[in-house]
Amino acid sequence: MRLAELSRRSGVSTATIKYYLREGLLRPGRQINATTAEYDEEHLRRLRLVRAMVQVGQLPVAKVREVLGHVDDESLGRTIRLGAALWALPQVPEPDEEDAYVQAAHEEVAALLDRLGWENARQLATLSPAYRSLVVAVAAFRRLGYGWGAEQLAPYAELMYRTAVLDLDNMETHPPGAERIEFAVLGAILNEPVLRALHRLAQEEETARRYGFE
Amino acid sequence: MRLAELSRRSGVSTATIKYYLREGLLRPGRQINATTAEYDEEHLRRLRLVRAMVQVGQLPVAKVREVLGHVDDESLGRTIRLGAALWALPQVPEPDEEDAYVQAAHEEVAALLDRLGWENARQLATLSPAYRSLVVAVAAFRRLGYGWGAEQLAPYAELMYRTAVLDLDNMETHPPGAERIEFAVLGAILNEPVLRALHRLAQEEETARRYGFE
Repeated sequence: MRLAELSRRSGVSTATIKYYLREGLLRPGRQINATTAEYDEEHLRRLRLVRAMVQVGQLPVAKVREVLGHVDDESLGRTIRLGAALWALPQVPEPDEEDAYVQAAHEEVAALLDRLGWENARQLATLSPAYRSLVVAVAAFRRLGYGWGAEQLAPYAELMYRTAVLDLDNMETHPPGAERIEFAVLGAILNEPVLRALHRLAQEEETARRYGFE
Repeated sequence: MRLAELSRRSGVSTATIKYYLREGLLRPGRQINATTAEYDEEHLRRLRLVRAMVQVGQLPVAKVREVLGHVDDESLGRTIRLGAALWALPQVPEPDEEDAYVQAAHEEVAALLDRLGWENARQLATLSPAYRSLVVAVAAFRRLGYGWGAEQLAPYAELMYRTAVLDLDNMETHPPGAERIEFAVLGAILNEPVLRALHRLAQEEETARRYGFE
């Protein structure tokens, strides 16, 4: 397809597509003559991913380029390649390791992973932003006087594990390689708002079931 | 307890506590003499809630005052009182009702709620920011060419429902009235980062289980 059709099908203006081409976020089209290039479905897919990162995820262009670099790096194994792409997404602030609440939270999270038998997550802990996010969030609860520990967190973790199984099952409906990793990145950006909204709706439903509209 | 002890036990400076008192976010202490007031456990609890909203939730003081107004409004029934407090928390942008993707997303979300039998959520739909958030999120998926509808969303919604049941069970371990609603507001602010982190950790665990560290 030509640039005009790529623009029409993606809903992205030709000026913006040209900007992404200059910035290296999209591979150049196949040059037909001096002024015309041909684009394919892969360009369209990549363009949608870039739009999701820029518009929904609000990532700066440099960060988008970094994530795409990992998506396209065929030299890496797929767990690492997927991890590198997801870990390049913005994360919460780093825990302050001097803080006593953070230290207590580290112990609780380690106890949680042992209890759950999440050995891989335990092994990835020093690398993983998700692990550090959890430590920060648990420390915030403790600082406010709520002693949430492994026991309270475990039932939530079991439900989130089942959620992750659904995520991976959905991901596996896409062909392996860059396309699958693209879907995972898109999922990481778009799934969280969906889950948050479903969770809040479920809270409303259950509150009304228990207490009515009294 | 005196102001100094309230400060020590909460970890909030006396200057900040005085500011919250002036702004009406904390009720005045019981005046003992011209220069000394006495504070109790309720002040400590309320102070922790204010800190969570300001520091973790990053809400402006005027918004904190609005949420607390709902928490303390004993004239309302508890479903509405809880809803009012949670709905005063910041939400995603409103859906653009002219947009064709938004219109399609409305239909999918309505079909989802029917399929799940969430009649209360259906009834609250026109009022609920969670409903609108879900419409916005589903529309974002559709705009990117992923036709997520009721069928794909239902298994996620079932897991989020079980998560909400845990939330309410936890909430009910607190005495009814303002204290319970305070805990729900705190949960809404602190639980989401915990769930997000657990979800990402679970994805890492499951990815490594399926694909190893190849």
